Amino acid sequence: MQTGNCVIGIDIGGTTTAFGFVDRQGGLLFETTLDTHADQPAETLVIRLCDAIGSLLKVLPPQVVLSGIGIGAPNANYLRGTVENPVNLNWGASVNLVELFRKRYDLPVAITNDANAAAIGELLFGGARGMKHALVITLGTGLGSGIITNGELLYGADGFAGELGHTTVDPAGRVCACGKRGCLETYVSATGLCRSVMELLGQRLDPSNLRETCFSQLTSKLIYEAACAGDSIALATFDFTARILGMKLADAVAHTSPEAIFLSGGLAAAGELLLAPTRRYMEEFLFTPYKGKVKLLQSALPEGSGAVLGAAALAWHEADKSK
Amino acid sequence: MQTGNCVIGIDIGGTTTAFGFVDRQGGLLFETTLDTHADQPAETLVIRLCDAIGSLLKVLPPQVVLSGIGIGAPNANYLRGTVENPVNLNWGASVNLVELFRKRYDLPVAITNDANAAAIGELLFGGARGMKHALVITLGTGLGSGIITNGELLYGADGFAGELGHTTVDPAGRVCACGKRGCLETYVSATGLCRSVMELLGQRLDPSNLRETCFSQLTSKLIYEAACAGDSIALATFDFTARILGMKLADAVAHTSPEAIFLSGGLAAAGELLLAPTRRYMEEFLFTPYKGKVKLLQSALPEGSGAVLGAAALAWHEADKSK
Repeated sequence: MQTGNCVIGIDIGGTTTAFGFVDRQGGLLFETTLDTHADQPAETLVIRLCDAIGSLLKVLPPQVVLSGIGIGAPNANYLRGTVENPVNLNWGASVNLVELFRKRYDLPVAITNDANAAAIGELLFGGARGMKHALVITLGTGLGSGIITNGELLYGADGFAGELGHTTVDPAGRVCACGKRGCLETYVSATGLCRSVMELLGQRLDPSNLRETCFSQLTSKLIYEAACAGDSIALATFDFTARILGMKLADAVAHTSPEAIFLSGGLAAAGELLLAPTRRYMEEFLFTPYKGKVKLLQSALPEGSGAVLGAAALAWHEADKSK
Repeated sequence: MQTGNCVIGIDIGGTTTAFGFVDRQGGLLFETTLDTHADQPAETLVIRLCDAIGSLLKVLPPQVVLSGIGIGAPNANYLRGTVENPVNLNWGASVNLVELFRKRYDLPVAITNDANAAAIGELLFGGARGMKHALVITLGTGLGSGIITNGELLYGADGFAGELGHTTVDPAGRVCACGKRGCLETYVSATGLCRSVMELLGQRLDPSNLRETCFSQLTSKLIYEAACAGDSIALATFDFTARILGMKLADAVAHTSPEAIFLSGGLAAAGELLLAPTRRYMEEFLFTPYKGKVKLLQSALPEGSGAVLGAAALAWHEADKSK
């Protein structure tokens, strides 16, 4: 295998796929995105990504030499190299993405859950540097999680540890795309936030500009802006979301006892509007021995680059192992 | 430090404290119990235990030489040697049990959560032998848990990982002795079972022998016997309990992805009456990638000895380290 000075980190999301060239120190040389087109097969996305990478390599300086490829994707299995039953992608039961890339590149390729990738990124290049036990929650279209225990990413028996988005908030609650009801991500995610606004508009009589936006047009960004402008429905939505997130983070602490929890992804950009009430509710729900001991922080990675840097961190790790 | 052929394993419960002499292979040479007297200070229990151990050493064969002491206790902190804010013991904020024993014995002494001790026991001497990822749930007066990840007991940042008894089932639910509401152990434990019977007797009109027993006299054993005799309230209580346990075990799987989950402790003696419906509900609540992959089993350790053997396993581990 060649030894380069750069890896490609790829973050596949339900809506957008981001990728970038990342050096040994976590420096992002170049980053761009493609629409994922979740309705199309995985092969199509791989071909489009390889085309884009090929074009970029032609214009990047010749001293950029690739050392490996790391991929973060929903429901990715590190042990098998596959993406299995992704909820927000129409890819079927199992696709071996690692094989699809290896057909095209003579480089080490590794894949992990997109949230696990964000967690490795936080551990190697972000706020979790030096920590032994941490939890990273990614808030995008869905809710992902990556768990660090004893300084390593936790994969579990089957390679699928850390899927907190599908823990149960309410067994009689909202229908989830996964087929269950009341999953955490139906409440705490960009989509969950929009669903909560709709419910609150139905339940309450407060005047709100959000009454002028239909569900299909609603975004977490619009809700954030409404909250910043003092809209009571938007503020109540953030409070409702923070309470559920705080309760389930307290549950997560009771499992792995992290030193800190990091929120990353689009919705985490709401910053203290989400973090402050979540911290308060989490403390309320924490079992006494944990109270006051777990930091809840925003990801220290550049907004939107956490998962790409994480995928790149995974690639560096694999490149080292193949030496 | 002397090197012996035997350790003492001590399991401190809310009602009963069991201890035994255990050899290198997990063989229990001798085991007995004391009433814990949860209302008395920790020092009193330590003195009573040391008295009992002293008396026993006099009658045991002279070839029994002690190598260490391992203790499992509620809310014990392995890293600090303390028991902190135990819910079912009137011991206050923090007691250093390791120091109390070291004053009396020139031996390595280690302490851990009683459920963590049960998990080490299962890993070294029971059904989890050879597993890398497992979860042990102890069902006694309360609900404890010990998490094995990568073949090691998970302690987390603060030494308190694995307190699933205080994850939240329903934030508006039953009052818990810990000060929170709706904790898992208020539903799934010997005490939780009794509380559920009372609620169901109030909600339903089924004739039931359980209507002749007052709450103070009710035990999980009586409920088990009623269920075996076909009592519909008792059967509904087991079903209700299994559903909540199944839901929260599915949540636990989404955290650490164990190969198997073991139930131990008094209530686990109900066997398939509890295991079969819990398995069914757990499968229902499991996120798709985990379905059909996680075994739910009864502890393979002799009934009632799991925690003592676990405490002993901890002692052997410490004795090895101090060599």
